[in-house]
Amino acid sequence: MTENETQSSTELAGEMEKLNATDCTTSIEEDKDGDIVDPWKVESKSAKGVDYDKLIKRFGSSRIDQQILDKIEKVTGKPVHHLLKRGIFFSHRDLNIILDLYEKKKPFFLYTGRGPSSDAMHLGHLIPFIFTKWLQDTFDVPLIIQLTDDEKFLWKDLSLEECHRLAIENAKDIIACGFDKEKTFIFADTDYISQSRAFYTTMCRIQKCVTFNQARGIFGFQDTDCIGKISFPSIQATTSFSVAFPQIFNGRKDIPCLIPCAIDQDPYFRMTRDIAPRLGYHKPSLIHSTFIPSLQGAQTKMSGSDPNSSIYLTDTPKQIKTKINKYAFSGGGATVEEHREKGGDCDIDISYKYLTFFLEDDGKLEQIRKDYTSGELLTGYLKKDLIAMLQEIVAKHQEKRKQITEEEVLEYMRPRKLIYDY
Amino acid sequence: MTENETQSSTELAGEMEKLNATDCTTSIEEDKDGDIVDPWKVESKSAKGVDYDKLIKRFGSSRIDQQILDKIEKVTGKPVHHLLKRGIFFSHRDLNIILDLYEKKKPFFLYTGRGPSSDAMHLGHLIPFIFTKWLQDTFDVPLIIQLTDDEKFLWKDLSLEECHRLAIENAKDIIACGFDKEKTFIFADTDYISQSRAFYTTMCRIQKCVTFNQARGIFGFQDTDCIGKISFPSIQATTSFSVAFPQIFNGRKDIPCLIPCAIDQDPYFRMTRDIAPRLGYHKPSLIHSTFIPSLQGAQTKMSGSDPNSSIYLTDTPKQIKTKINKYAFSGGGATVEEHREKGGDCDIDISYKYLTFFLEDDGKLEQIRKDYTSGELLTGYLKKDLIAMLQEIVAKHQEKRKQITEEEVLEYMRPRKLIYDY
Repeated sequence: MTENETQSSTELAGEMEKLNATDCTTSIEEDKDGDIVDPWKVESKSAKGVDYDKLIKRFGSSRIDQQILDKIEKVTGKPVHHLLKRGIFFSHRDLNIILDLYEKKKPFFLYTGRGPSSDAMHLGHLIPFIFTKWLQDTFDVPLIIQLTDDEKFLWKDLSLEECHRLAIENAKDIIACGFDKEKTFIFADTDYISQSRAFYTTMCRIQKCVTFNQARGIFGFQDTDCIGKISFPSIQATTSFSVAFPQIFNGRKDIPCLIPCAIDQDPYFRMTRDIAPRLGYHKPSLIHSTFIPSLQGAQTKMSGSDPNSSIYLTDTPKQIKTKINKYAFSGGGATVEEHREKGGDCDIDISYKYLTFFLEDDGKLEQIRKDYTSGELLTGYLKKDLIAMLQEIVAKHQEKRKQITEEEVLEYMRPRKLIYDY
Repeated sequence: MTENETQSSTELAGEMEKLNATDCTTSIEEDKDGDIVDPWKVESKSAKGVDYDKLIKRFGSSRIDQQILDKIEKVTGKPVHHLLKRGIFFSHRDLNIILDLYEKKKPFFLYTGRGPSSDAMHLGHLIPFIFTKWLQDTFDVPLIIQLTDDEKFLWKDLSLEECHRLAIENAKDIIACGFDKEKTFIFADTDYISQSRAFYTTMCRIQKCVTFNQARGIFGFQDTDCIGKISFPSIQATTSFSVAFPQIFNGRKDIPCLIPCAIDQDPYFRMTRDIAPRLGYHKPSLIHSTFIPSLQGAQTKMSGSDPNSSIYLTDTPKQIKTKINKYAFSGGGATVEEHREKGGDCDIDISYKYLTFFLEDDGKLEQIRKDYTSGELLTGYLKKDLIAMLQEIVAKHQEKRKQITEEEVLEYMRPRKLIYDY
């Protein structure tokens, strides 16, 4: 590593260009079809939403195909999660490496996160955590969850104190997903950076490897962006490396990482994968999800800032019912007659799409698809099923969240050894 | 402060431009006479060295004139230090504010630092610390010394471990200058940033206030510079604010700061002064020193990287004698006859210049100046006096340094309350 460090920035820049050629194949930009996908914006001109096949090509990641689904079932001996089976987690980088390690009983860890910019988490925010919980249960490995309160302070019109308060509040929603305290470390950046020399020094090593040119190419930074934004990617990258958590990994810097996240976070980890070899660390593997569409349609994702676009984890049963009935974009016919005749279009029907995220019963989902497409099932009935299901999911979540005390949150967020030995 | 924070980066950028007009009047560049003075390079085409009058105009600072020297003596009741009297500390920003505070028995603190890039500290490195020691003794206030090991890692071909080791070694030389343990906190960035939430969050607030454009204008950053360099100035700025040291200032964020430093560090603090009002903090005051010239002449300053340019704190009496005799640029005549006839030129004679830094006796110094200028005193005798004096200074320093234990260094570097109450 010293050898890496002792190279000059310009040498590193040169190396980086080479590495870019292999992994970091795209910069932030709208593609020909007008799909925009970056850490700050997701938009599509198509009612079917972002073209994820195109995105895989643009980002240079790999599709999660039947072969890799079979491999997951083979090495875990368990059926794959419906979010995998249904292509909601649709793309990956080097997932095979992680599966091979698991097969050989070699260690790895999970890393995911959230930017705490609002109290109001919505159903879309739950998806990566629901899936990560399944990964933790299935692979039985440590999970590290990063809450980027400093990022939200730098990007939003929020005070640092407010961002940290939101981190604690969001942590309660995350814990409510059922993560095992003995296997999970949750941290806010402003807490852990000022607690861990290992984390800060890893940040520094990463910051030395990335030039402003490269950061601008990957994230689209402007000269008018503040210097905090420009160095921030190093902070999200640091969590990919076990060396930043000596209390968990006993100082080992060779424990690989699997990152489940929405595809818009990929730029951070393309950068991370590019620099990892130079620092003597493993490239993190990734598994990418699509976005849960807004109630108004798949052109945009659920947004915490637009109440009518999202079902919040704090919504009442009545609010859920009203929002679905009033706003959920329908792929059904304009009239009952037209619907009976032409049938509904599941590709653009938001209620149906939500069922694919939350209805675990494949048989029931397929039956609904058939009946809705044929026109037999009316939008009203489809929505009725969805409303009942979401009311139950949200109510259960609220119940679990209520039971989580401040003390419990602080325990999840205390830097400490987990039950795993290294 | 929240109000400040809740402004968008672009609004802040706008404000910054206005502020720049008032304080941050120059960017890194060579002036017409070919003087280069920035945190990374000091060079002049003139044998008399940098034109410090021009520098004051270029930087927009104020000259330390007789009036302010008188004021210092008036409020302290003590004669001013010879480094002040002789114009080696020649420039300031808002020093009057600090003197007025002191007169009113209001608190302030001292901040200086060093970039630990080498074991080999030389006489030039001692100057700011010798003067800072006098300030601490005279004003009896807390002193904070920042060792920027992360900076040196980012700028030099050194490992982070090596930079931290150098920070500890340099701390011993600094402590040997006689700073009072109960009044002094010394820290390395990689230690204190990962120990203090107050320091890291202050860094974040500063990073939100400075755009890449502004950093480039002040420091001359290139697009090929790493992102760590671009955000680093926020770390050197943070130490100017008492809020970053709650253990010392009991959480008060309104204790003003006086920074004695070499003039090449001014860009960091121009930036700091520009953003301070927006964060609700006091602008730091500064007092700037000239550079101790290299043995070869005043065109360049002593450099740790060129052994023949400097007297090191580790040099033996024999090495000191050899270096002065062999390398110290002479303003004397080429022959004894010529010297007797034309006399010596104290403006370019390095041995004489060194005497102005280290010979405290004004009468003796003036006598030497007269005799050397008249040609009565030969260069050889001038050098003889200087050699004897430097041998004694360096020997005494080495003696003091030897007595400093690892434990003592760690105590100076332990975040803790000092003897002052707030």
